[in-house]
Amino acid sequence: MTYEINETHDPDLKSWVESANDPNTDFPIQNLPFCRYISKFDGPWTTGVVIGDYVLDIFPAREMGIISKFPDLWGDGNKDIFAPTAEIRKELVDFLRADNLDAPKITEEKPGLIVPVSDVKFSPLFDVIRNYTDFYCSIYHATNVGSMFRPDNPLLPNYKYVPIGYHGRASSIVISGTDIKRPHGQNRTDQEAPPVFIPCKSLDYEMEVGFFVGQGNELGTSIPIGEAEKHIFGLCLVNDWSARDIQAWEYQPLGPFLAKNFATTISPFVVTMEALAPFRTPAFEREEGDPAPLDYLADDNNEKFGGIDINLEVFIQTEKMRGENIEPFLLSRSNMKDLYWTIGQMLTHHASGGCNLQTGDLIATGTISGKEKSERGSMLELSWRGTEPIELPNGETRRFLEDGDEIIMKGYCEREGFRRIGFGECRGRILPAE
Amino acid sequence: MTYEINETHDPDLKSWVESANDPNTDFPIQNLPFCRYISKFDGPWTTGVVIGDYVLDIFPAREMGIISKFPDLWGDGNKDIFAPTAEIRKELVDFLRADNLDAPKITEEKPGLIVPVSDVKFSPLFDVIRNYTDFYCSIYHATNVGSMFRPDNPLLPNYKYVPIGYHGRASSIVISGTDIKRPHGQNRTDQEAPPVFIPCKSLDYEMEVGFFVGQGNELGTSIPIGEAEKHIFGLCLVNDWSARDIQAWEYQPLGPFLAKNFATTISPFVVTMEALAPFRTPAFEREEGDPAPLDYLADDNNEKFGGIDINLEVFIQTEKMRGENIEPFLLSRSNMKDLYWTIGQMLTHHASGGCNLQTGDLIATGTISGKEKSERGSMLELSWRGTEPIELPNGETRRFLEDGDEIIMKGYCEREGFRRIGFGECRGRILPAE
Repeated sequence: MTYEINETHDPDLKSWVESANDPNTDFPIQNLPFCRYISKFDGPWTTGVVIGDYVLDIFPAREMGIISKFPDLWGDGNKDIFAPTAEIRKELVDFLRADNLDAPKITEEKPGLIVPVSDVKFSPLFDVIRNYTDFYCSIYHATNVGSMFRPDNPLLPNYKYVPIGYHGRASSIVISGTDIKRPHGQNRTDQEAPPVFIPCKSLDYEMEVGFFVGQGNELGTSIPIGEAEKHIFGLCLVNDWSARDIQAWEYQPLGPFLAKNFATTISPFVVTMEALAPFRTPAFEREEGDPAPLDYLADDNNEKFGGIDINLEVFIQTEKMRGENIEPFLLSRSNMKDLYWTIGQMLTHHASGGCNLQTGDLIATGTISGKEKSERGSMLELSWRGTEPIELPNGETRRFLEDGDEIIMKGYCEREGFRRIGFGECRGRILPAE
Repeated sequence: MTYEINETHDPDLKSWVESANDPNTDFPIQNLPFCRYISKFDGPWTTGVVIGDYVLDIFPAREMGIISKFPDLWGDGNKDIFAPTAEIRKELVDFLRADNLDAPKITEEKPGLIVPVSDVKFSPLFDVIRNYTDFYCSIYHATNVGSMFRPDNPLLPNYKYVPIGYHGRASSIVISGTDIKRPHGQNRTDQEAPPVFIPCKSLDYEMEVGFFVGQGNELGTSIPIGEAEKHIFGLCLVNDWSARDIQAWEYQPLGPFLAKNFATTISPFVVTMEALAPFRTPAFEREEGDPAPLDYLADDNNEKFGGIDINLEVFIQTEKMRGENIEPFLLSRSNMKDLYWTIGQMLTHHASGGCNLQTGDLIATGTISGKEKSERGSMLELSWRGTEPIELPNGETRRFLEDGDEIIMKGYCEREGFRRIGFGECRGRILPAE
């Protein structure tokens, strides 16, 4: 099971890649997230694993026998094969550990095997994300949003039974660092007048975590909850940019559409389920009186280990702050373990009617908010629909995002007795509408 | 413009492929829809054009100079190229017309150039449908469904301004003839009891038309309404299977999810915009007092020619009817020209916030219902949510679909002075839940 802790999680393991031993790195030898990249100097796109400030190219590593079993095809054109990440993890740790005295020399003799992260450009891990689904699994987020629109009845009756989700737009997923153009759309903020087609006035971010499907399932079959995590390759950070004014006017009765499909940003580093093993937590503790999950979503292991303790942080840096050399400002902190539904439950629910999941599908959690005000994962919630503007350190205020604002999301796992691992960053800056 | 009528639409044109001259064929020389197929005897998958009871392979045709300019890559792996269908249409008509006396001999000398439809298997035209969007553009359908749930206020305030749509599931699109397994899902028909996870009890079809995107647009750009049809390759029939009980319980607040993503059936033959030129109609005539479309959705050509006169028919054949050799029974007839929004408006709206459309995207209209009771495009509407069972010729009744039922959809265009063209069939039979 992906919950198992083994020698690759030993906190005393060090690497001969010195930067991986920095206590502040997101990428020690205990992490080894996957990514897709291209050298800034020569191509082609390839798949790699991050170690400290370097990235190791998986294909020469396979040729050289450092790892075995990695599939030839990866992503598009490969619907069925997924990487056996547990084995690769052990092989990579054996190669990268500080006491492997041969490895630095081997590396030196093979140019391109390991290159500095600063010399490469990243793309999403799967060159084509086939399908993108977004859930709505934070009960705190759902309650916050619900109470703005329905104060007496914030949570709908289905919420505690159904992991609510919807299909998102796969084509507009972009990699961290891509600028985001403010979208136009229909706005009917003034209910007395007809709608107008104008640039979005209440642009927002949503702090989410996404997971990639490794092995899929055939159409017409389902995935039992006990098998769910075998189908999950790893996790990344997701910013589900949202145009709140467009959303409010368009979403009835079929859900969000143009309010969400202009862009979704993901972080490039996919942290494997194996790397996350030390940070598993019980599933959300439901309140007294809450219904238990229906049988198809219930399982002892899910109950005990279904959650994941990932600290999430959202920062903002406005254009003015950049000009004044003011560091990005922390807007909120939340934690993935506070989700009402686990990623196993999301995946099992998704396939429960026979929907076929495919290698490379991205499934996101929905905005992750916590119980406290400081844990709200979107600006809609932080500014309470714009009624409580957020004060920034240089005196600026924000109800929603303005042109030039950059949103930076971070994620990391910490636990006593284990090495800290991180997700890197998920960044995007708002460009004005054209 | 794709509205232009030229010599390829001449009703007197005949082909040396005799079956194309049958007055009842869907595929005379004036149609020439595209398809993707594989021989039952040997492979590989290829792209073809249907003529009468035959299919012509586009790749040897290009080698032989019958057509020029057809792209090497088609569908997956080819994001940008689209076929110049107007030129190909003229070249194919020149080759296939009855007065081309050399063509039968050329064909005879090139085995595989033209093969009987009965010797091949079809798949969706684009080997990977990248993104699937479903609209909700029949005001009669929206009003019918709305009045079941909100009798006093059937149509939501956004309907006459926003072409309402949502993202569907691309992975579960299947070709006509694929069996459809009844899905399981959460059902809370009994509001007094907790939901149960059981096989769907109110399985339904939806009669829709879909269009494929030819050339896409870059993320962050939009497509003016006057350019919209240049991005549309052609049309097919779509059955958007729907699990009404699952939908009723899950759809708030983010729209349909598992109720729709277990399967969507499409017909294999993609009728080009050029073939449809004689059947263009004005856009929907809005009622006195209805708002005009906002500027970004308005255009003279769209107003004059935006609609398409396609007759649509839905038939049912139950297992008992098959046993008794009773022909499929006509459930309803409707017409695409009754849609409130045109396909150009759907496409322009979709990209209006900067969403990037991609070659091979499928965009469907939503259920096409007409004003009359006999024109209702789903069983939900025909049986008025199960309250008015439908009587079949052998005494059976239906509120929703039962196991063994087969739904057969057909579409065709007829106009005085032009040759009738058709869409073939879109079929699917219900298998029991497992």
